[in-house]
Amino acid sequence: MTLSSVQHALTHFAAERDWEQFHTPKNLAMALAGESGELLQIFQWLRPEQCVQVMQDDERAVQVREEMADVLAYLLRLADVLGVDLEQALAEKIEKNRRKYPVHLARGKADKYTELGG
Amino acid sequence: MTLSSVQHALTHFAAERDWEQFHTPKNLAMALAGESGELLQIFQWLRPEQCVQVMQDDERAVQVREEMADVLAYLLRLADVLGVDLEQALAEKIEKNRRKYPVHLARGKADKYTELGG
Amino acid sequence: MTLSSVQHALTHFAAERDWEQFHTPKNLAMALAGESGELLQIFQWLRPEQCVQVMQDDERAVQVREEMADVLAYLLRLADVLGVDLEQALAEKIEKNRRKYPVHLARGKADKYTELGG
Amino acid sequence: MTLSSVQHALTHFAAERDWEQFHTPKNLAMALAGESGELLQIFQWLRPEQCVQVMQDDERAVQVREEMADVLAYLLRLADVLGVDLEQALAEKIEKNRRKYPVHLARGKADKYTELGG
Repeated sequence: MTLSSVQHALTHFAAERDWEQFHTPKNLAMALAGESGELLQIFQWLRPEQCVQVMQDDERAVQVREEMADVLAYLLRLADVLGVDLEQALAEKIEKNRRKYPVHLARGKADKYTELGG
Repeated sequence: MTLSSVQHALTHFAAERDWEQFHTPKNLAMALAGESGELLQIFQWLRPEQCVQVMQDDERAVQVREEMADVLAYLLRLADVLGVDLEQALAEKIEKNRRKYPVHLARGKADKYTELGG
Repeated sequence: MTLSSVQHALTHFAAERDWEQFHTPKNLAMALAGESGELLQIFQWLRPEQCVQVMQDDERAVQVREEMADVLAYLLRLADVLGVDLEQALAEKIEKNRRKYPVHLARGKADKYTELGG
Repeated sequence: MTLSSVQHALTHFAAERDWEQFHTPKNLAMALAGESGELLQIFQWLRPEQCVQVMQDDERAVQVREEMADVLAYLLRLADVLGVDLEQALAEKIEKNRRKYPVHLARGKADKYTELGG
């Protein structure tokens, strides 16, 4: 399944329920942040080693998968209402970061490297 | 480009820079929430009609695309380190919500329907 | 009741339950963001006029008060473990913003004024 | 300085700049979550021991204080526009949690105790 086919399924899901009226860019950005917050809460009191094993606990594994699905769902809905091609946006961002964080300078340093990862 | 090929590109990007040490589940969940917060800030003072037209302002359009790309990037990294198949997780969540919010009951109601959208 | 007396009550509450082990700066910053996300979710699907009247709905009013209390609680816990004097930090920030956003320049403009309010 | 005097100073600060039009409950909840996200980003790549020492780095200490001040500022503005007495709300929440998490049951357990701290 491609990202755009999932996106269409979500658009259809919202349209069938007449939920497009709620799916303004502002509301969707809020919903995305809200779901990210729920994901955060799963990990907040866990020690590092518990975080790594989180998927071995059946109940938590379901929660993690559902919260991650919700984040992706709202991100795709927001992309839809704003007309953003998410895959292309990500490909461009990776390219930009490749130039911004050359391997030989960025290796092992998280210090100033706060985007896409370090 | 499929979601999993982008995911592999991001994993490679992190590995090349020896950033995997920073990419613990806890840290990635934080980074995801942080980027969602940045996306939120783009919209926070805009009136609804300004939000809808946000992509017509070149500077803001770039910001929106980049923040959305960052959210997707960290979500994919988190899926990678936790071994979550994101597309499958979303497909299952859509199916679950289809049963939870039947069209004839959920139509036009946002009241108790806070997931996947209404 | 002063802010510092509430802060002491919270420190005592955590100590009694041996919860200080969980209250690292990182975990508390996550908990704070998580509670802010819950507050966000109360407002996400509401129309502007519904947001303004949110405290007239008894059930929602309780939710709003509790989420706001949680945000303040974690902020005070974080201030405690980091040794930050929150009231002084806010007084300094207001002073800084007074210079940054002079009344005659900032009046009615939200454009570039994203801090403390405009 | 009491919390309510700071709150009045912030209300006055916004009124002088004609920023009350932007300070709707929805927008303030977004701003609060956005600032919590910025605070989160300070800690996201730090190891636990670096988090504990964060206030010993002058540059980061300033950042931490400013982000915490911003979170408090927006929380107080939201309390103001919604007519919430924050100190009372927190006192009530502490009382509620005292009953919900009795010391002898909650000691040292973070498991189901996700509010106000454990």
